[in-house]
Formats: sequence, C-alpha cells, structure tokens
Amino acid sequence: MTTEHEQHPADPDRATAQHPADPDRATAQHSSGFSRRGLLGAGLAAAGAGVGAAVGIAGAAAATGVNPLAAATNGDESLDLSQQHPFYATAAGQPQGGIRTVPQRHCVFMTFDLSTSVATDLQVLLARWSAAIAQLQAGKTVGSVEPAHGNGVGADTGEALDLGPASLTVTVGLGPGVFDERFGLADKRPAHLAAIPTLPSDNLDEQLTGGDLSLQACADDPQVAYHAVRDLARMARGTATVRWTVLGFGRASAGPSQSTPRNLMGFKDGTRNVTTDDEFDRFVWVDQPGDGAAWMRGGTYQVVRKIRMNLETWDADVVSDQQRVFGRTKIDGAPLSGGSEHTTPDFHAAHGDGTTKIDARSHIALAAHEANGGVKILRRGYNYTDGLNQYGQLDAGLLFAAYMNDPEHFERLQRKLGASDRLNEYVSHIGSAVFAVPPAPRKGSYIAEQLFR
Amino acid sequence: MTTEHEQHPADPDRATAQHPADPDRATAQHSSGFSRRGLLGAGLAAAGAGVGAAVGIAGAAAATGVNPLAAATNGDESLDLSQQHPFYATAAGQPQGGIRTVPQRHCVFMTFDLSTSVATDLQVLLARWSAAIAQLQAGKTVGSVEPAHGNGVGADTGEALDLGPASLTVTVGLGPGVFDERFGLADKRPAHLAAIPTLPSDNLDEQLTGGDLSLQACADDPQVAYHAVRDLARMARGTATVRWTVLGFGRASAGPSQSTPRNLMGFKDGTRNVTTDDEFDRFVWVDQPGDGAAWMRGGTYQVVRKIRMNLETWDADVVSDQQRVFGRTKIDGAPLSGGSEHTTPDFHAAHGDGTTKIDARSHIALAAHEANGGVKILRRGYNYTDGLNQYGQLDAGLLFAAYMNDPEHFERLQRKLGASDRLNEYVSHIGSAVFAVPPAPRKGSYIAEQLFR
Repeated sequence: MTTEHEQHPADPDRATAQHPADPDRATAQHSSGFSRRGLLGAGLAAAGAGVGAAVGIAGAAAATGVNPLAAATNGDESLDLSQQHPFYATAAGQPQGGIRTVPQRHCVFMTFDLSTSVATDLQVLLARWSAAIAQLQAGKTVGSVEPAHGNGVGADTGEALDLGPASLTVTVGLGPGVFDERFGLADKRPAHLAAIPTLPSDNLDEQLTGGDLSLQACADDPQVAYHAVRDLARMARGTATVRWTVLGFGRASAGPSQSTPRNLMGFKDGTRNVTTDDEFDRFVWVDQPGDGAAWMRGGTYQVVRKIRMNLETWDADVVSDQQRVFGRTKIDGAPLSGGSEHTTPDFHAAHGDGTTKIDARSHIALAAHEANGGVKILRRGYNYTDGLNQYGQLDAGLLFAAYMNDPEHFERLQRKLGASDRLNEYVSHIGSAVFAVPPAPRKGSYIAEQLFR
Repeated sequence: MTTEHEQHPADPDRATAQHPADPDRATAQHSSGFSRRGLLGAGLAAAGAGVGAAVGIAGAAAATGVNPLAAATNGDESLDLSQQHPFYATAAGQPQGGIRTVPQRHCVFMTFDLSTSVATDLQVLLARWSAAIAQLQAGKTVGSVEPAHGNGVGADTGEALDLGPASLTVTVGLGPGVFDERFGLADKRPAHLAAIPTLPSDNLDEQLTGGDLSLQACADDPQVAYHAVRDLARMARGTATVRWTVLGFGRASAGPSQSTPRNLMGFKDGTRNVTTDDEFDRFVWVDQPGDGAAWMRGGTYQVVRKIRMNLETWDADVVSDQQRVFGRTKIDGAPLSGGSEHTTPDFHAAHGDGTTKIDARSHIALAAHEANGGVKILRRGYNYTDGLNQYGQLDAGLLFAAYMNDPEHFERLQRKLGASDRLNEYVSHIGSAVFAVPPAPRKGSYIAEQLFR
C-alpha cells in the first residue's frame, strides 16, 4: 500500500458560514428535530406527546423544539444521563434520530452483510430492530435479562441495566447491496445510492469497507451505545453478519455558548457545519427520492469514512505549518485571513508579497462551499483510537460520518481534497461506506416498511 | 495457544462483605482520599487548600472529606466535568490519585519500556511527568499549544483545550525493570516487587505484558484521559518507548445510592470491594516497604490484567448457568444463597439434595476472602472493547486493575481461580503487568524523588 498522499474531508471546515450571533444558527443548534417544510410544528409536538409519560423532560423539550441537551450541557458542562430521544415519527417523512440530534459524546458504528437472499428475512430484521431500538432509546432492555427462573438464554445481555437512556439514538442505513439481484428490490433503489467509487488518495482496507446495513448508535454513555449495537447484532444472527465497526468519542457542541469540539489533531472541527432549517432542507433531507423510492422521502444518505491520522508525524510538525495546513489558528480556530472562529474566511486576502493568507491548498480553502458550487454536507464525526499500531505508534483518527441528499456531493469534495489537500500528508482514508437512511417509522410500523409493499 | 481453560479474577466478588447500611461503607465510598492512620484529617484538608483558588468545588469538597463526584452523580445521574482532583500531597505518605478515587468513567492505561540506562534520565522523566500531571489534573495544558507565532512545535497537542479537568487523575507506576542492573537502584527495590510468575490458565500475548513504567489516566471525559497519556508519552520520547495500552470505560459507582457497575457479561462487578479506612490500611497501602525502600511508604502495588471475554459464547449460555458460574443472580446481583446484593453469601447453604446453592467452583466462592485467608485486594477495573476480532466476533473484556500491599495476594487468588473457576470457560487473561506505585509527591517535589537520593 502506498500512503504517501492520503486524503480526508472531515474537519474544521466544510459547510456554511454561520455567525454565532445569527438567529438562525441559535435556533437550529438548539433543535434536535428536523425541518421538512410544512411538517415541523405538528411533527415535533406530536413526537413529544406520542411517547407518553415515560419521555419526561426530553419529550417535553422536544415538543417545544428546545433541545434538552442544550440545557444540560450549556455553561456548567454537566450532563444528564436520564435524557431520552423518541424513536417513532408522528408524521410521514420525519427523519431518524442521530442525524440532526445534537451529537452525543459516544458513538458505535457497525456495518453488516446480509447472509440471506430472502426479502422477508430482511423485512423481519428491520421490524425486530425497530421495535428493539424503540425500547433501547427509552432506556429499556430489548427483552428479558433473566427469562423464567433463568432457564433460557437472555434476550438482552444486561450490561446497560439501570444506566438510563443517556440520549441514545440508533440510526439504521441500507447499503447498495439491499438493491442488488438478491431481494427483488432493484426497482426501489434510491436515486443516488451506489457504492462510492475509488477516490484520489484512497488507502482503503477492504475489511473496513461497505456493508448491506449500518447501525450508528450514539449516546452520552459508552456502555449504553455499545450495548445497543451488541444486542442488535445478536438479533441479526442468521440473517446478517458483522462486517466492520468503529467506536468513537467526542465532546458535543451543543450550541453557540458551547465551544466547537476538537479533533485529535487539536483543531476545532465543525465550525462551518450545516445548521439552519433551510440548509437541512437544501442539503440533507431527500426531497426527490427517485422513481420507485418514495419510501425514502424525508430520509437522507450516510457516508462514513474511517480516517487514520498520523498523529506522531503531526505532533512533530511546527504549529505554524499545522495552521497553514488547516487554514485556521489552532487555539481559536480563526481563519488565517483574520477575525475569530466564526468570521467568514477571506480566501483572497493576501500578504504584502502577494501570497494569500489562507493557502490555496489548505483544507478550508479546498473544502469551502464557496469553492464547491455552494454544496454543503452535514458532518457528524467522532474521534476514535485503536490503541497502538504494529510500530508502537498511536493508532487513532476520525470516524467521519456525514449526511447529505446526494452522496455525489461528498465524492465531488473528496475528489478535490484527495488530489490536493495539504492535510493528505497526515491522514489516510482506510474505511468507507455509503447507506440510504430511510425516515423514522410511525408507531406500529418499522424502518423502511414501505420499501416492501 | 490453548484456551480451553482460561481464568480471571475480576468481578462480582473478591473482597469483603460491606452492607449498604454499614456506616463504614457509606463513609469510605464517599471519600476520594486515603486513610493512612494519623494523617487523614490534616492531609486532606491541606490538600484542598494547597492547590489554591483554582480548585473550586472539588478542592473544597476534598478538604471536607466529601467526594465531589458523589454529589454530582447521586440520584440524577448527571456529571459535572469541571471537577478536579489535586495532584500534590501535603504530607508524607499520601497516596496518588486514581486508587481510592471514586472511579471515573474512562481510563487509558499505558506501559513503557525505558530505552535509557542512565538513572538521571528516569529521574528527569518522573520530574517532568509530575509537573505535567499537576497541570493536567487542574485542567490546564502541559505547555504552549501555539508557541510564539506558531514558530515551533507545540508542547501540548491541544485536543483537550477547554474540556476542563473532568476529574482526571494520572497514576504513575514503576515496574520491576527500574530495579534491575541498569540504573543502580537494585538496593532500593520494594520488598514485594517482582514480575508476576506464570499462573494457571495464563494465555498471555507477549506484546501485552510488562513494562518499566505505567500510566493510568482516568477521567470522566475520554478525550481528557487520552490527551493526558498521549502528551505524557510524547514527553517520554528518547527516554522510554510505548509498550502496550488499553482504553476502558464504565459507569462509576459513587456510593451506596449508586448501583454497582456491570461488566460486559451483564453482571454487577465490585459488590464486595475494599471500602473502609481500616481495609485500605490493612490491604492496600504499603506500611512495610522493605529495606532501602522507605520511599514506597504510603504507596501501593498495581496489578493490571487484560482479560478478554468470549462474549459470543457467553451470550449463548442459558442465564441459569451464567448465574451458577458467578454464584449470583444477574439482575440483582444477589448471592444464590439468598438475600439481596449486599447480603453476605452463605457458601454452606444447600438445596434439599445436599448440593450447595453457591457452586463451589463459582467465581464468588473461589474468590471470597473467607476462602483465601481473609485476603482482599482493591479492584478498580474498566470494560474495554477492541471492535471485532479476526473471526468477526466482538473483541471485548475487562481491563482489570487492582491495588494491594503485596502482589502475592493477587497471585494466590489467581492461582486458585486459574485452576478451578467456572468462569475460565468464558475468559482469557491476555495481558499482565505489575508496578510499584509510590505515594504522591509534595509540591516542589516529584514522584519517587526519594528513590534517587
């Protein structure tokens, strides 16, 4: 494998410029809901009410459009692990959790290969998963931990007993394989779902690519997230086998008064992310799912990349060069063209000698929507660490997860970054996959039920 | 490698029976300090005052002997990430943090091989580490993130900026190698420090054993713990190289009103742990360090084992058998002889047919202090997960860390468990190391300074 020029898309710059004083930004970052035009009010209010008394604070907050986490994490940095997010939608086309949800502190991502070629097996799995996720997000087990007198195998492995919901969300994705010749679902393939082509600087490990299904479990307690994926994987036995997994962590950014989280390179990551209702509608939620794919309306696409960072090389670099690579200052995250973190970068600002203050091959210059036809994607990444590699060096990086209404938007960006980004010297894309993420089901239904009709 | 009979020491039973209503237990679990006879009052009060205004709530709480975490986690399950633990001792023989400290939610453990054979190199490293740990535990960086105009390599990698102290403690240990022929320190070797011998059912991976130095960084934020070890490892360059590492997580047990945390087998872990002042003095703190090792008085020994759990096999077992293996019920953690979690197990109670209710080869029967000459060790373990193994199965288990005033106590216990424990079918000890843990230094000094005099 050649690793001389690697790539990566996932850091302090990608999307739009939202000033902290911008009222849109404040509103959007405090909403854990979604914004499908015309559905907003009724949908959220009903979502809060629909789950009943057990929802408590989180439900009440969701009903008013206020993110319960924001209240918990703002200012005092404390965290309330009794918070929960409802699973079921109360109107068609509402998205699943874990996309616009304010990022929780931990994430377990796992993909699966279907070992069946019978569509009803997949259907049953999605139905079982949906019922189980609804339980898990409410802080409950997926079934009995101690079946009658212990004379049976437990339906739930038990390690999350008493830990509470911890803001868990589990997001389910369907890979391109679901629509191949096996299941007779080819004519329902979402318009933009196809395996990600080879991109410049790709350094993929085959064992960390693809999958027919994906689970993204995020929670404020790692044991709650791990338990969810473990027990859902267990439920898939006989229908799907585990393919690859990444465990991530990160401090949430819960609003303008909370600082932007940092990646393991020490730089702020997420300054110019998708935040407003309008941006979500334009760039994230699927409005035109394609012929036969009406079941995807209100859904989105998930692109996941496991991006290894060569931390020991990075740590030996002088900070002025690190800043040139990103195009921002390290501590404040201000663009090198001046101002503070949320100042819009001026890619034309130049020094006396005519060189631009922000290097044209810096990460923020190449990734900026201004340089990419206005395209933005929602980034929702986590840091990961796998301990040490075979050379005794830190093995760590970024679990890059992004949501968009057309994966081509990611590909376009990464083609450019993979070819030219100064960051390529320090990162390596080793994992990759794409999934269609259907909207949330209504109570009594399950994820993607409409796909099987 | 044969794995038919593996072993493990690390779970729902090991030490003393402490009833929740026992006043000793309530007191001890709410103390994050220590209990060297005669030092307690002055030491803790001074520790709180010594760190100055920056200590805030945590310092004030420590000064009164009340664990600040208990207040934060009791009842509402919320967590205050602005809490901090002071690093420096204010009297001789006070222990380092991370031993009696109420377990934080995350842990990064790492060992190092010394690449120097010059004692002053080791001395300088311990001095630098001590100064850095004092900074880190106060929520500060170990040096400049952006040196003058960025024209230099950052002293701190920056990813924990603004994250606060998050109750960080970093515990430093010295392995047997420090006292070999290299450094001229052989005559100062602590009485009981020697490599752990091969024990029954050992299935060790050479790459996960030993080390001349250890760091155990625990915090309520994983990025804070990771940053600490990363930057301390960076500081060791040229003097020591990284050997092995494990990243752990777990929900803290902060007192009688907080439930006992569960391991990944779904069972409560830590019900009969060392808790009282008297037990700490008898079983944990070193009172007789040996000839030439006066520098260890008030310290302790750290035994660390990486214990893999065969979770997929375990998950397929009927719960009644799982309960027989542990000797306790799964949900409540009550001994199979009856009662509730904190009821003292009755190892003689029998069914009508004469068989004991608690199997003689169950984990709690073999590990009980009643069956081991009254010996107890302090367990302070974390769950870990390494993703998937080469068979696509969950690769996870327990980062077992225990503290005791003689590692032979662990060896004695593990010899028995490794030979007979029913749990051996489901676990495998793959990593192992032992370290002498000196007491905390006073301000102006550093860890183990006395060793070099």
